[in-house]
Amino acid sequence: MSILRGARAVVAETTTISIDAMGGDHGPPVVVPGVARHADLWRARGVRFLLHGDQARIEAELAQVPSIRALCEIRHTDKVIGMDAKPAHAMRRGAGTSLWNALESVRDGEAQAAVSSGNTGALMAIARLILRMVGELKRPALVGMWPTLDRPCSVLDVGANVDCDAERLVEFAIMGDAFHRALHRTEHPSIALLSNGREEQKGSEAVRAADRLLRENSLGLNYQGFVEGDDLSKGVADVVVTDGFVGNVALKTAEGIGRYVAAELRAALTATLVDKIGAAIASGALRRLRDRLDPSSVDGGPLLGLNGVVVKSHGGTNAKGFGNAIRVAVDLAQSECGSEIQRNLQQLTAALTERSPGRAPAPENSE
Amino acid sequence: MSILRGARAVVAETTTISIDAMGGDHGPPVVVPGVARHADLWRARGVRFLLHGDQARIEAELAQVPSIRALCEIRHTDKVIGMDAKPAHAMRRGAGTSLWNALESVRDGEAQAAVSSGNTGALMAIARLILRMVGELKRPALVGMWPTLDRPCSVLDVGANVDCDAERLVEFAIMGDAFHRALHRTEHPSIALLSNGREEQKGSEAVRAADRLLRENSLGLNYQGFVEGDDLSKGVADVVVTDGFVGNVALKTAEGIGRYVAAELRAALTATLVDKIGAAIASGALRRLRDRLDPSSVDGGPLLGLNGVVVKSHGGTNAKGFGNAIRVAVDLAQSECGSEIQRNLQQLTAALTERSPGRAPAPENSE
Repeated sequence: MSILRGARAVVAETTTISIDAMGGDHGPPVVVPGVARHADLWRARGVRFLLHGDQARIEAELAQVPSIRALCEIRHTDKVIGMDAKPAHAMRRGAGTSLWNALESVRDGEAQAAVSSGNTGALMAIARLILRMVGELKRPALVGMWPTLDRPCSVLDVGANVDCDAERLVEFAIMGDAFHRALHRTEHPSIALLSNGREEQKGSEAVRAADRLLRENSLGLNYQGFVEGDDLSKGVADVVVTDGFVGNVALKTAEGIGRYVAAELRAALTATLVDKIGAAIASGALRRLRDRLDPSSVDGGPLLGLNGVVVKSHGGTNAKGFGNAIRVAVDLAQSECGSEIQRNLQQLTAALTERSPGRAPAPENSE
Repeated sequence: MSILRGARAVVAETTTISIDAMGGDHGPPVVVPGVARHADLWRARGVRFLLHGDQARIEAELAQVPSIRALCEIRHTDKVIGMDAKPAHAMRRGAGTSLWNALESVRDGEAQAAVSSGNTGALMAIARLILRMVGELKRPALVGMWPTLDRPCSVLDVGANVDCDAERLVEFAIMGDAFHRALHRTEHPSIALLSNGREEQKGSEAVRAADRLLRENSLGLNYQGFVEGDDLSKGVADVVVTDGFVGNVALKTAEGIGRYVAAELRAALTATLVDKIGAAIASGALRRLRDRLDPSSVDGGPLLGLNGVVVKSHGGTNAKGFGNAIRVAVDLAQSECGSEIQRNLQQLTAALTERSPGRAPAPENSE
């Protein structure tokens, strides 16, 4: 059995992170440097790694970063899930792949969190199969970290759940509240619904119904009402709830506009010799700006609602992005997020049962 | 009667634009300088104006820009619709307001287009009441002009129609095609549906059903399939179709990210003295960038599907933005957009009737 499990028995503070080393567009050449990125932090926080994938390829990458070799144990498999595999196919044929095995390590208690930059649909589907959902939740929600000028903003769902009814949106609010409190240590995170206007008559049918549910039930949430797309970057709410279709469009739109502005800035600053001189003098400022706007700074989207911590990193991520995704996984694994979600769901069930005593004790889900 | 109508009888090329001079957050102090902004262009293209609103306040502003006085006729009213009036209330009580009268001038043939930066909901509702929809269309679609590096991209709907079924989305495609062809003189504009991924299994139920309708019917459209949020700024399609909820969130998200990046850029370029010197030297480049990213450069969202041209300018617009909205109105009024939409709708009706001969001749609308 794992040497890490033995180690854990001795040092209770050890946190083991299970890594899908073959995931993403690049596999080990990005994943292993990502693991190596915050080596001092891992040591300080008692973090170790299980790396699932091709032993020879992983060893070759670890040879480049010998300082973390002692933190890592390799679990060999030569099976992988392709980035374009359909989720249903991946579920049927995925047993024994690096992604599958990474999740099994969490289920079996060998690891406290899994990180993968693999196929999102496959990760969702297999995580749900292997780890199962908490309570009566139906599908995991994917959280996006939104860039704002000051405080962090968590947006969910950003791609996993497309057609959502009001109760699903309320579940997102409940999971987002627990997640944000656990990760950012905010006592009562403010929660808002993303809508097409702030006035109460705005919103799709599902959004208006979710607004009523959040207002009329005492779920213990700090619910603020509607926010609009341009409020996301202002940081007006800690947690913004939306369905996966809208969340995905908003997140990708933001990335697209970020790249568009960067391209315009580049074009503007290279138009004339004078511009180039100015840009060269301000190059430190422009580099800091690029770093702040770098999407890999906010990589790491947790899948909430599972019995276990699973963090998705971008498929096209780099070592910096993957390292940040691991940090999110460590923070969550060392937090009370799981039990906070459980507690919030019990409050939801109690509130809904009180409202209509005849109904089933758990919230329904539609799909 | 209007002197402009007399003038029109003589000079057939005159285009009269009916202006809601009291609309928006500022009214005449923004609207009148907006009218004055492209005075040479108006003269070259035979444009005149009907200004609806408070005569004294409009005259006071016109006194600042005497060169356009001869192009303008004032139609006095002291009634206005507040920016926060509910649409239903505005419809019942709006008769005789500047917004209402501006639309009546179009209905009565006195003007070929109306421009307002007033309350969007009220403008939609009253335009529908006064001008009526083309054919069996149910509600106007609001078009957003999306910033891209090269060619223009039209996104619709960006806020008017929240819960849309597949046939409504197909109608947007049809209106967008006609609009883009008329305004940008693109022979076969490429049309795409906004989704949460490019693969065919992606999309909400309505989006997938619209995709099937667009593929299976020969509507004469250059339909390309799905695009994602980050494709909007890449200019991968001429017309991007989405429901008003998603379109509104995407547009506002883009505005928010634009402002966020500008704030970060400002902070980066004023952090140290060296940065400030660099920024001062490259100030020409940074000013050009600001101009290109200025939302008022793309102000002017047409409401499509009405019997008449109506253009919405942002409520908080400035003179530059309002001037640009008028340009869009002039371009549309002097184009074949209206008849192109009619022709496209006939093709849709024919295609749907052919598919299911028993159905009503016109497409259904849900609301």
